[in-house]
Amino acid sequence: MKYLIRLSFDGTAYCGWQMQKNGPSVQEQVFRALTTVFGNVQEFSGCSRTDAGVHALDFCASFAADSTLPCEKVIAALNANLPRDIAVHAAEIVPDDFHARYSVIKKEYRYRILTTPARSPFWEDRAWHRVGEYDLEALNRAASHLCGPHDFRSFMAAGSKITDCTRTVFDAHFEQDGDTLSFYVSADGFLYNMVRIMVGTLLEVPRKYPPEEIKAILEAKNRAAAGATAPARGLYLNRVEY
Amino acid sequence: MKYLIRLSFDGTAYCGWQMQKNGPSVQEQVFRALTTVFGNVQEFSGCSRTDAGVHALDFCASFAADSTLPCEKVIAALNANLPRDIAVHAAEIVPDDFHARYSVIKKEYRYRILTTPARSPFWEDRAWHRVGEYDLEALNRAASHLCGPHDFRSFMAAGSKITDCTRTVFDAHFEQDGDTLSFYVSADGFLYNMVRIMVGTLLEVPRKYPPEEIKAILEAKNRAAAGATAPARGLYLNRVEY
Repeated sequence: MKYLIRLSFDGTAYCGWQMQKNGPSVQEQVFRALTTVFGNVQEFSGCSRTDAGVHALDFCASFAADSTLPCEKVIAALNANLPRDIAVHAAEIVPDDFHARYSVIKKEYRYRILTTPARSPFWEDRAWHRVGEYDLEALNRAASHLCGPHDFRSFMAAGSKITDCTRTVFDAHFEQDGDTLSFYVSADGFLYNMVRIMVGTLLEVPRKYPPEEIKAILEAKNRAAAGATAPARGLYLNRVEY
Repeated sequence: MKYLIRLSFDGTAYCGWQMQKNGPSVQEQVFRALTTVFGNVQEFSGCSRTDAGVHALDFCASFAADSTLPCEKVIAALNANLPRDIAVHAAEIVPDDFHARYSVIKKEYRYRILTTPARSPFWEDRAWHRVGEYDLEALNRAASHLCGPHDFRSFMAAGSKITDCTRTVFDAHFEQDGDTLSFYVSADGFLYNMVRIMVGTLLEVPRKYPPEEIKAILEAKNRAAAGATAPARGLYLNRVEY
């Protein structure tokens, strides 16, 4: 049977999803739990790599197992074997040719900014504490220029090997919710550091860039035209659609 | 000058506010920061004791210092000297006879319950994960019976030495907010474990107790008449008024 599981994790303690030699990965923890529950799994794949310190509210992974365990039992059994900073919240049976990475239609990220003057113990490692006045209307006007199919080379980490940098952004907007400002962006795919560079750039609006400057930054197709890379700790993979 | 400071803290790592021999306390950390910033402080007092693992969004403390440091500098200087799980978010100058504990008019607690079937990495240590269907209307009818001046002996930890158990509850109600259910209760004072016993009791409504049973539990004036003590990790001191 092929299963799709949806996980949330606090990425603070991990080098990211992907197994790596230089640190503990979320994938390694999930793989260990799968092996404990199913004995043996094949075709284990996550929906994307994530950077060290990045969080997920809906990370997807698929695997094949010689099992007929019902989905609610899969959830409970995996959660009993996962560390407290990782949990499965949904599971479903998917067709054999399903692939957590290649079958993705849309991914949504959320980036959280804590805007209070003082830091908060409850948002350490889980938001970017950036004090300031935010002009929500200007931010949303700027973000709207990111929507549509574009070459997002300006919003890709320097040194990336990708050559086709065209992605389609379906939605990009900000919402203020009490003390946190959130940036939501959904697309058919993301380049390396794309969301974090978007956030680092957009938050300079309107002080450094007028909202319309985002168009010129896109057209420059040059990382140097955009702003700084926002820290990993504010970033959450928020939803994945297949 | 006498100062009042308002703090938030994640209580997970602490034995509570109060300095104790058997573990690290929040008070000790705040005292250390005060000493670093002011050299020497007198009449240092918190608004209440808290249990190990209990959190605060608005814990109040007062102290006198030979200083004329403006309040915004007090906040910044203390935060630079406090660990990341404790932060000051407000400071004000108060009259010399002000006392963080004895001048309190009203305190509000919030108790958070995570109601999703699966646990969440983001609420570990910060909510009580208790799966179930909640009847908000019944819960609120039950909670309403706690309002007013009552002898709350039934909702006090067994073995407490307090003899006058009358307190006035101003408000007690539940709110559902997405995946978390919160119980809010404000009063002129609280007995030992009072909120946690209230929560442990109310959450048995309507399965074990009909909402009106709360009246009989109060009238019993006996800890054994009430339900279990809810875990500390869901409890937050939410607001203090003077």
